[in-house]
Amino acid sequence: MSDPRPIGIFDSGLGGLTVAKEIYNLLPHENTIYIGDTARVPYGNRSPETVTQFTIESIEALLKFKVKTVVIACGTASSVALKYVQQKYPNLLILGVIDPAAQDAVHTTSSNHIGVIGTNATIGSNSFTNAIRRYNRNITVHSQSCPLFVPLVEEGIINHEIILKETVKYYLTHLKSTPIDTLILGCTHYPIIGHVISAFLPSVKLVNTGASLATNLQSTLHQHQILNSTNAPGVHRYFVTDKHSAFEATAHTFLNEKITIQKIEL
Amino acid sequence: MSDPRPIGIFDSGLGGLTVAKEIYNLLPHENTIYIGDTARVPYGNRSPETVTQFTIESIEALLKFKVKTVVIACGTASSVALKYVQQKYPNLLILGVIDPAAQDAVHTTSSNHIGVIGTNATIGSNSFTNAIRRYNRNITVHSQSCPLFVPLVEEGIINHEIILKETVKYYLTHLKSTPIDTLILGCTHYPIIGHVISAFLPSVKLVNTGASLATNLQSTLHQHQILNSTNAPGVHRYFVTDKHSAFEATAHTFLNEKITIQKIEL
Repeated sequence: MSDPRPIGIFDSGLGGLTVAKEIYNLLPHENTIYIGDTARVPYGNRSPETVTQFTIESIEALLKFKVKTVVIACGTASSVALKYVQQKYPNLLILGVIDPAAQDAVHTTSSNHIGVIGTNATIGSNSFTNAIRRYNRNITVHSQSCPLFVPLVEEGIINHEIILKETVKYYLTHLKSTPIDTLILGCTHYPIIGHVISAFLPSVKLVNTGASLATNLQSTLHQHQILNSTNAPGVHRYFVTDKHSAFEATAHTFLNEKITIQKIEL
Repeated sequence: MSDPRPIGIFDSGLGGLTVAKEIYNLLPHENTIYIGDTARVPYGNRSPETVTQFTIESIEALLKFKVKTVVIACGTASSVALKYVQQKYPNLLILGVIDPAAQDAVHTTSSNHIGVIGTNATIGSNSFTNAIRRYNRNITVHSQSCPLFVPLVEEGIINHEIILKETVKYYLTHLKSTPIDTLILGCTHYPIIGHVISAFLPSVKLVNTGASLATNLQSTLHQHQILNSTNAPGVHRYFVTDKHSAFEATAHTFLNEKITIQKIEL
């Protein structure tokens, strides 16, 4: 069985491209459609009803491309809307970024102390903490919001080591004094500065939500026998709801390759 | 003649409180109404039509408080909507933050080289450059966007000197090699880190848009004989279109005093 239908990837902006990259690495023959709702990014301060409505609109747009599965790369939408849309679209496979990372972290930790870093909205929602404790109630979760990491990555300051190192130190010094041995990078932007976080917390294993999601996606496609068993490289298309001239540069930061982005109406 | 009617101050968010503070300093007996459109902040990436519409909505809300004048503290709205609303409301005094700062900078410079720093949107709009050159065509303007300054201030990292100093150095090193002797802080958030900017550019005079606006407002009220000639301290009221628990802390950063913020519908 081979299923050439594309995988739909949805994010509030361009950060989900780090998730896309992990999918390309693990599933190089799969075709993908990426939608970034850049006109309405960020979702973090919006009500759950609004985020759910935006998620439905993106899923509807992805369904027009006849996707075989939908990946919600956005942490806020995964926290808030996943259950609802899974019920609304019972015949569509829909994956979020919270559960796979939580599960990976639970399997990785030996100390039973897991750290979680993310935006104010993600940390405030406790979604990673709740997911981790569903898998193992004996784990202590240490969470920390790091709101400056997203603008640091988006403004391309990722090569200015002193600013990065000092900002990482500023946010993560507290975590250094806890017994965590595993840290979930609970925001799509954070893998870009993973090397700086690792240098500050050298004995801690980092869990990248995109990589966890990709592994989970691979086994889900395999289980449902809908992998694309061609030898050709996957074709990747990119859509955004509002287009700025800076997007191609930002996309390059996340994907490390040059892409063409088209505008789409939701 | 004494006019106790309040001054209306409008901003896309809370940054305009630095403008409010300058007004309180210079005009301590004036009553004020502040509206921050926090539900729709930032305006920088929105279309001119949308920003104009939002500005009209805030002016309408301020008019219900019987304001005697409206200050548009938002750089984007001042650039994009000021002319339109001045024509739409011919009997209302409406001031923006661009022109007073440009005029002050032109009066301050001896080298005829002025620097302007601001958000991507403000620098991209060239509004300060155009205003400066309306006052004096022989001035060279050196502009630089500093997009990380707003999140640095909003996340309260203003006491973490190393991050601030390195970020200032990152953005302003280029300006240091120009002959500027005057620098417009073209964003309401920047006065909060003015001391760090001054330390990096010690021979450059900083122009604070809020201070320039306040001086301009004082002479405008005087000229129209609508100053409030009481001896009582002014009463200041604060409204936002969306309320977060963190707002009171952010407001403290900008005003250096504790305030009560109420929600308002526009």
